[in-house]
Amino acid sequence: MLRRVRVSSLASTFLAFMMMLAFAQLPSLAKTTERRATEFTLSNGMQVVVIPDHRAPVVTHMVWYRVGAADEPRGKSGIAHFLEHLMFKSTEKIASGEFSRIVSRMGGQDNAFTSQDATAYFQRIHKDRLGEVMAMEADRMVNLRLTEHEVLTERDVILEERRSRVENNPQAVLDEQMNAVLYYSHTYGIPVIGWEHEIARLTREDALSFYKHHYAPNNAILVVSGDVTPEEVRRLAEETYGKIPANPEIKPRVRPMDPEQRAARRVELKDPRAGKPSVQRYYVTPSYVTAKPGEAEALDLLMKIAGSGATSRLYQKLVATDKIASSAGGWYGGSSMDFGKIAVYAIPADGVSLETVEKAIDEVLADIIENGVTEAELARAKKAYLAEYVYESDNQATLARRYGWGLVVGRTVEDIEAWPERIAKVTLDDIKMVARRYLDPRRSVTGTLIPVAPDVVQETDTASSERRT
Amino acid sequence: MLRRVRVSSLASTFLAFMMMLAFAQLPSLAKTTERRATEFTLSNGMQVVVIPDHRAPVVTHMVWYRVGAADEPRGKSGIAHFLEHLMFKSTEKIASGEFSRIVSRMGGQDNAFTSQDATAYFQRIHKDRLGEVMAMEADRMVNLRLTEHEVLTERDVILEERRSRVENNPQAVLDEQMNAVLYYSHTYGIPVIGWEHEIARLTREDALSFYKHHYAPNNAILVVSGDVTPEEVRRLAEETYGKIPANPEIKPRVRPMDPEQRAARRVELKDPRAGKPSVQRYYVTPSYVTAKPGEAEALDLLMKIAGSGATSRLYQKLVATDKIASSAGGWYGGSSMDFGKIAVYAIPADGVSLETVEKAIDEVLADIIENGVTEAELARAKKAYLAEYVYESDNQATLARRYGWGLVVGRTVEDIEAWPERIAKVTLDDIKMVARRYLDPRRSVTGTLIPVAPDVVQETDTASSERRT
Repeated sequence: MLRRVRVSSLASTFLAFMMMLAFAQLPSLAKTTERRATEFTLSNGMQVVVIPDHRAPVVTHMVWYRVGAADEPRGKSGIAHFLEHLMFKSTEKIASGEFSRIVSRMGGQDNAFTSQDATAYFQRIHKDRLGEVMAMEADRMVNLRLTEHEVLTERDVILEERRSRVENNPQAVLDEQMNAVLYYSHTYGIPVIGWEHEIARLTREDALSFYKHHYAPNNAILVVSGDVTPEEVRRLAEETYGKIPANPEIKPRVRPMDPEQRAARRVELKDPRAGKPSVQRYYVTPSYVTAKPGEAEALDLLMKIAGSGATSRLYQKLVATDKIASSAGGWYGGSSMDFGKIAVYAIPADGVSLETVEKAIDEVLADIIENGVTEAELARAKKAYLAEYVYESDNQATLARRYGWGLVVGRTVEDIEAWPERIAKVTLDDIKMVARRYLDPRRSVTGTLIPVAPDVVQETDTASSERRT
Repeated sequence: MLRRVRVSSLASTFLAFMMMLAFAQLPSLAKTTERRATEFTLSNGMQVVVIPDHRAPVVTHMVWYRVGAADEPRGKSGIAHFLEHLMFKSTEKIASGEFSRIVSRMGGQDNAFTSQDATAYFQRIHKDRLGEVMAMEADRMVNLRLTEHEVLTERDVILEERRSRVENNPQAVLDEQMNAVLYYSHTYGIPVIGWEHEIARLTREDALSFYKHHYAPNNAILVVSGDVTPEEVRRLAEETYGKIPANPEIKPRVRPMDPEQRAARRVELKDPRAGKPSVQRYYVTPSYVTAKPGEAEALDLLMKIAGSGATSRLYQKLVATDKIASSAGGWYGGSSMDFGKIAVYAIPADGVSLETVEKAIDEVLADIIENGVTEAELARAKKAYLAEYVYESDNQATLARRYGWGLVVGRTVEDIEAWPERIAKVTLDDIKMVARRYLDPRRSVTGTLIPVAPDVVQETDTASSERRT
């Protein structure tokens, strides 16, 4: 049984980017802002982006659907991710579970993931196989077949996935609780994998209804990077995806927007399985889609300086200088459609209280709000980002992901490719302005994870206790 | 321009009950458990309850719809309450705004309210006018007409209502924030009046769509109390409501249920308009509809003892003995459909910190969880509740409200009338058990309201600032 367990979050996306850097080489910065992608649209409305890269005879083929967990009907949380799993069942042409084995026999790899804003399916294969893979992906875009047995079996797989990834991980539980508290009406407050009690009631009809409402060429973006030309992709796309009629029912996405953020919130999770106490804080911010021009870039640089790595303000103050924390940092996630998020966190050193480290975090942030950052810090952060951008551009899969992620939330190729230029333009005043505007406690939820002896956990009702074991 | 401004909440319902007591006399307790109401159903599915009371030639006529703010579509918060306002516009027979004037010319009074679970319209009139009022109410159940101008004008009225009742009242803002944090997916987290940005976008089509989906005889309950017989009500109801066909599209209500409550939460609201600091806490509990047998009654008695009036544990400890608070108390609200709520609160005495009073609240609750309450306290609380029940039964309007409120959330007449018996059966162990089970910090959100000097409020983005003025 295949288990597809990737549920992307801003944090994990960010970490994945960071890890990729470690294995890349630094090409010339001069290539940073060149135009790389070609885009066109099929007559049925399917958007196509091609990013040629002829260094090796391989291609990365991705299909992104403009639907994610944040688009799920009320009470059906987890259905986007559940359907992603079920997309590996049968069509008339492909037997159940065969999709990945066929790709594997071609010498390729495949997978899929679901985020709040998107569901994506991708394969990395030899360029000669691109047409075959596109035919398979086009086939399951509209011809998926599901049996009751497959659906129920896969639902158990997902419930087990939730147990292992969330229920057994106090940090993941706290993250869920913090998101639920951070957003008011917006569906970003619901976990991508779904609430357990809702997953447990998802049905074959729920999956097929979601599929029929959202899986169509005019709700999808094809991204192909690698050893291929735009002309070849166009020809293959017209032969495969191009044959599928558009679904006229597809409408622009509308999510319930949140009221004003006006009260600082806290969540305290006591858990006997928590190894160490920790504190983290999220702030709601704009995303690259919703920010005023330059704000998201300034937020990226702000949090690079404040929280990324051993040279960051938070690490330097809490870990290196004051020695009150064993770990401290922060990040900005701006890739989502409706909101971005700032996160800061610290793990106290032995014998240091959570209050002490939280106070130190506040001091670091207050200092930036009051005094800004230095010219040297800004220059270093820009250089680091531009270098990362180039590193990432060297990786075919990452490149496909960059364009797909940007386009699926409504950004343009021009916007995506002009990012390095906009990063270069951010000023010290911009940083200070976004720090003051968005590091506002009223926009935040602070979460604390506190280890307790198992017998300190209070009695709860039976249903809850059963769920917890 | 009529302004209908009642938005019921658990707290205001409770307070209304409390205030009514002050003006009533205590009849014999022997009448407590007699059967008072007669019920039947019209052929179109409309449920009818009649509570005769022949002391004066007046009747209270109420129509309750099984729809409230918690049943609103996503992104359309406030539409239930908005429609309640618009129900006073025209039909073919009644000119816009005339409904209440006609009732008034009959010598009667009328009003309406919206809660999370119900929307109700009621009139108190001379018994001879009952047929006329029923004809008018039946008419607007299906014949409402709305012009674009009326809708837009009324929307401004509601936005102004929200400004005066919520935006200008830090305590109301904190209550909204706490509810938003208390519930995860459940729509009880959305204010009955609606979020301002969503009210501002409600349209005539939204109102008419909500009306057509929910206003029908098979989604309504008619409650008549007063100088009338069940036979008379049946005849009049058949002549009026009975002529309206059932709407076959009406389905049982389904709201998204919440995941397990597992982390204590806090909300801190700083506001220059807050006169005094205060602390309050809500705990999610079962309601009378969802509780195990006897639990809701035990919760009612628990909170009577813990928080109601000057003899309560909280008042005695914080105000009378320790003199650290100028006010302290608590209540249980169990009348909603899906969840109940415990609330506790205190206002510190001058010079006492919020931390100090919150710690004292915790000590009072911990003592009850550990040691329970006394036999004398339980006896006194039961006696007080039974007396209140009889007091309330003496008020025709309150009686109609009791049955309507119970039936609209799915309880039965038998269940409603057996309440005094069930209260009488609650034991000391029951109280201790529900205290331990439901006064669990993981089920709670604690809110603090903190006055600040106006210039301490941090800068926020322009849109938010504009909204606040």
